[in-house]
Amino acid sequence: MQYELFYWPSIQGRGEFVRLALEDAGADYIDVARESGPAQGIEVMVALMDQGDRPPFAPPFLRVDDLIVAQTANILFFLGPALDLVPTGETERLWAHQLQLTVTDFVAEIHNVHHPLSAELYYEDQTAAAAEAATCFLEARMPRFMGYFESVLQAAGGHYLLGESLSYVDLSIFQLIAGLRYAFPNAMARDEGLYPGVVALHDRVALRPNIAAYLASKRRIAFNEEGIFRHYPELDI
Amino acid sequence: MQYELFYWPSIQGRGEFVRLALEDAGADYIDVARESGPAQGIEVMVALMDQGDRPPFAPPFLRVDDLIVAQTANILFFLGPALDLVPTGETERLWAHQLQLTVTDFVAEIHNVHHPLSAELYYEDQTAAAAEAATCFLEARMPRFMGYFESVLQAAGGHYLLGESLSYVDLSIFQLIAGLRYAFPNAMARDEGLYPGVVALHDRVALRPNIAAYLASKRRIAFNEEGIFRHYPELDI
Repeated sequence: MQYELFYWPSIQGRGEFVRLALEDAGADYIDVARESGPAQGIEVMVALMDQGDRPPFAPPFLRVDDLIVAQTANILFFLGPALDLVPTGETERLWAHQLQLTVTDFVAEIHNVHHPLSAELYYEDQTAAAAEAATCFLEARMPRFMGYFESVLQAAGGHYLLGESLSYVDLSIFQLIAGLRYAFPNAMARDEGLYPGVVALHDRVALRPNIAAYLASKRRIAFNEEGIFRHYPELDI
Repeated sequence: MQYELFYWPSIQGRGEFVRLALEDAGADYIDVARESGPAQGIEVMVALMDQGDRPPFAPPFLRVDDLIVAQTANILFFLGPALDLVPTGETERLWAHQLQLTVTDFVAEIHNVHHPLSAELYYEDQTAAAAEAATCFLEARMPRFMGYFESVLQAAGGHYLLGESLSYVDLSIFQLIAGLRYAFPNAMARDEGLYPGVVALHDRVALRPNIAAYLASKRRIAFNEEGIFRHYPELDI
């Protein structure tokens, strides 16, 4: 079974949450837009969004045989059991998904920091609003989300969000910490000690053999100022 | 089986997407915070968010026996089969959920119009940013989402988003149209003719006996300026 992942070829973005799951599981997959060459890759992806009766609204999406699944959290919900990255019971799957949807909400707020007025405008056209958004985010929203994940982790015993076994949600928490450290190094240096369990979880994930190999490979795109986590020093504290 | 819905008692908000599904199905449910009296209702809900190992991040959430399910789209994914509001096959359930998560994204952008800088600030403290956000929303983002749902509906035959039978996603589309008409009457009067299928779907849902009865009852909270869809004339065209 080979998975085809469709996502923008030059950013980690939302696709990275799926890439981390596929990489950790050692799944057989193609990152289609990247492996087709830059311009042609996007063409292939966009063409797929314009055809068929059930098109995705936006990347990322995954194709397996004739089935196309879109929306990051939905892709992970679908992949979880096949990749052994979630317990099989319905209650556990719903809980993992609920957490992943909270990650989704957090990611949307992180993106909103540098694009508060609209995703249709450039950052450069909304810098004043972004500065205000960043202050509210770092002082109120980031602590709220991070504190939530920390408390869930502690209640689960401190190792992984669902208990003794790693799930795809833990891989997403790794990505959140890595991205927030890139985007807001000063704020994270000041505050990440408040979330010791979540930070330790990040470190634990980074040491997993498949993840460590992935992070050291060319398949891991570097953080940059086109993605979700952008380092604009003027938005950090 | 009685469902307990927990949500803010004075707004439609995200809870309304769940209420519509429960009402259409004629399900036995209690809107806990509303039926406990205003102040006490919120107290009951907030207490539940502070206890247990698997707390919701935010309302709405649903309790069935000992199980608590949060995140609007996750609640609908869970309720869909039990309420006969989604086909039972896995592929159909994933597709319905994918559409519902696109509704979720749209709802977040609609909320962002009046709260572009932060949900932590009052609207009155971000009116200039909101005016800019509203322009981008009405000219670019609303057409993008509405056009997407229109094309999915047409590809499915024009009756319901999943084909011949109504699903919970159709109920959410009803709510989107109703809410956008309340918030942006001028923009909708100008543009809704571009989405004839989606508007007809709204009307079809409104005529369903259980929905019509609900809309005429006191259980349907009126739109107001505390919820997602807010009518600020200065943000309309």
